[in-house]
Amino acid sequence: MAYSDLIDDLLKRNPRAAAKLITKVENDFEAAEQIINKIFKYTGNAYILGITGAPGCGKSTLISTLTKLFVDNGKKVGILAVDPTSPLTGGALLGDRIRMKENFSFKDVFIRSMANRGQLGGLARATEDAIKILDAYGCDIIIVETVGVGQSEVDIFKSAQTVAVLLVAGLGDDIQAIKAGIMEITDIFVVNKMDIPGADKKVAEIQQMLELNLNYKYESNNDNEDFTNKYKWAPEIVKVNSKTGENFDIFLDLIHKHQKFIQKKEIFANYQINRIRNETFQILKHKITKKVEGLLRSNSEIDKYIKLVMDKSMDPYSMANLIIKLLGIE
Amino acid sequence: MAYSDLIDDLLKRNPRAAAKLITKVENDFEAAEQIINKIFKYTGNAYILGITGAPGCGKSTLISTLTKLFVDNGKKVGILAVDPTSPLTGGALLGDRIRMKENFSFKDVFIRSMANRGQLGGLARATEDAIKILDAYGCDIIIVETVGVGQSEVDIFKSAQTVAVLLVAGLGDDIQAIKAGIMEITDIFVVNKMDIPGADKKVAEIQQMLELNLNYKYESNNDNEDFTNKYKWAPEIVKVNSKTGENFDIFLDLIHKHQKFIQKKEIFANYQINRIRNETFQILKHKITKKVEGLLRSNSEIDKYIKLVMDKSMDPYSMANLIIKLLGIE
Repeated sequence: MAYSDLIDDLLKRNPRAAAKLITKVENDFEAAEQIINKIFKYTGNAYILGITGAPGCGKSTLISTLTKLFVDNGKKVGILAVDPTSPLTGGALLGDRIRMKENFSFKDVFIRSMANRGQLGGLARATEDAIKILDAYGCDIIIVETVGVGQSEVDIFKSAQTVAVLLVAGLGDDIQAIKAGIMEITDIFVVNKMDIPGADKKVAEIQQMLELNLNYKYESNNDNEDFTNKYKWAPEIVKVNSKTGENFDIFLDLIHKHQKFIQKKEIFANYQINRIRNETFQILKHKITKKVEGLLRSNSEIDKYIKLVMDKSMDPYSMANLIIKLLGIE
Repeated sequence: MAYSDLIDDLLKRNPRAAAKLITKVENDFEAAEQIINKIFKYTGNAYILGITGAPGCGKSTLISTLTKLFVDNGKKVGILAVDPTSPLTGGALLGDRIRMKENFSFKDVFIRSMANRGQLGGLARATEDAIKILDAYGCDIIIVETVGVGQSEVDIFKSAQTVAVLLVAGLGDDIQAIKAGIMEITDIFVVNKMDIPGADKKVAEIQQMLELNLNYKYESNNDNEDFTNKYKWAPEIVKVNSKTGENFDIFLDLIHKHQKFIQKKEIFANYQINRIRNETFQILKHKITKKVEGLLRSNSEIDKYIKLVMDKSMDPYSMANLIIKLLGIE
């Protein structure tokens, strides 16, 4: 059967099989469907850690230092560097990861870059599938790294059990950026480069911001107020020096603390439900988008509508409503 | 009737009405539907010029200089600065536009910033609606400006009749970035800051790249080879100095040349059909996404599926297929 050999090799912890399968799910939606269908039962063991921060905040060094600590503790680590902005940044994130590969052995650390290749909303879906492949492959910890705070990052981090956001003094408006959406998904704020003047001020700024905001991430699905009050996580703040490793013991303790928090039965169910919903939503978005694109290109009824819009006898919103009727999903 | 007064004022060329209506279509999908429905018949007169380029390429100065030339020719200009990356860039593009406002009178030039506020795929839809509002408002030329080359920019530029891409010597990998997707939509390449050493080399690089690539933008809908050969546009290249205005006469000539090209009957029909398809697609994406999101949150059948996925009795792709059946759009 298709992909059976590769999947057998994956389960035997063959890194080349993992790499090949990730390439498949990235480039071929039908292949992704078949592969995930087969490996899904082997997933659910990895701990997924999301890390984000603006370019220049030192993500690369921090992830190296953190990964070394995990490996020293006998953990197998997977790193997915996701760069939705790669045409804008010239792939800086991806280059960093290639350099990082030189520091670790294939056996302990699997590193992979993923960039948007123009698929509509496909990056979150492909990343979720890559996480599952690394999970089945036997990674204990999967670090998912992104550069920004757009909608695609928020979607990607719905799979992460713990999300850490990196900030650094002197980089400017990042507190502003946090407000724009990342706040709702952050569990741990990390002020990197703690030796730079202004690090303590940055910590104070984050504290202030936290006092003004609620933490939305752990709201119950049922909007049950008791649940929300009982299971609220107060985001933690830590300052570190990724070059010297200073305060990484505290950072690791916070990760473990959050790990314990999220493993509470109700919280974990909540996380799982949100993750499954988001995942299914990404898959549905792709399937329905393809369907609609196909319809728009090849349906004679729609050609008639287009003519009416060209003549200004109809506007595009009315056309969209007619197509929804045509699809039968009104 | 709702918005009737604002729309009356818009048609009387009241800039505040234009600003208010754009805010409405940005923030409220239902309002957008009603507004576009009413103003659609007044649109179709503006010439839409898309301009893109990486941060630092001098877009701001170039657009100022160009706008001044248009205004001197008696044209009314609208500028929409679209920044899908605004949390990443800290809104640099938007700040530039605010400064630009000081150079022009409200009567001649309408400037507006649009940033993604996390709506799913909503920026292309909102920008298209804002273009229509400025069109009905009486702008002769609408400049749509973005910072990058991601999927959202490509979607946004499907409304533009002419697309100019700015490059500048010494900014690095921008040729690489072009290959990643902008090539297919560019009509005029502008090498800005022609006084910088390397400008001629940049022109040569673009020429080389053009020789290796085809121009996809004007492919017929029917994939008719005769059409493609007859109506192919060979992208033009011009180097300019936006500070001194040097070579802007050539740049303007190229814009007019392309304007003439695209106004050929078959080409213009092709442009219109693509624009209507894309527009309708953006609206449909929003409507169907909302529908699916609602279903995922409130359907008891889906809660059963989620439990099955949590138990690993089903994978998310299979769940998505069941939901598609549930929606009746298989």
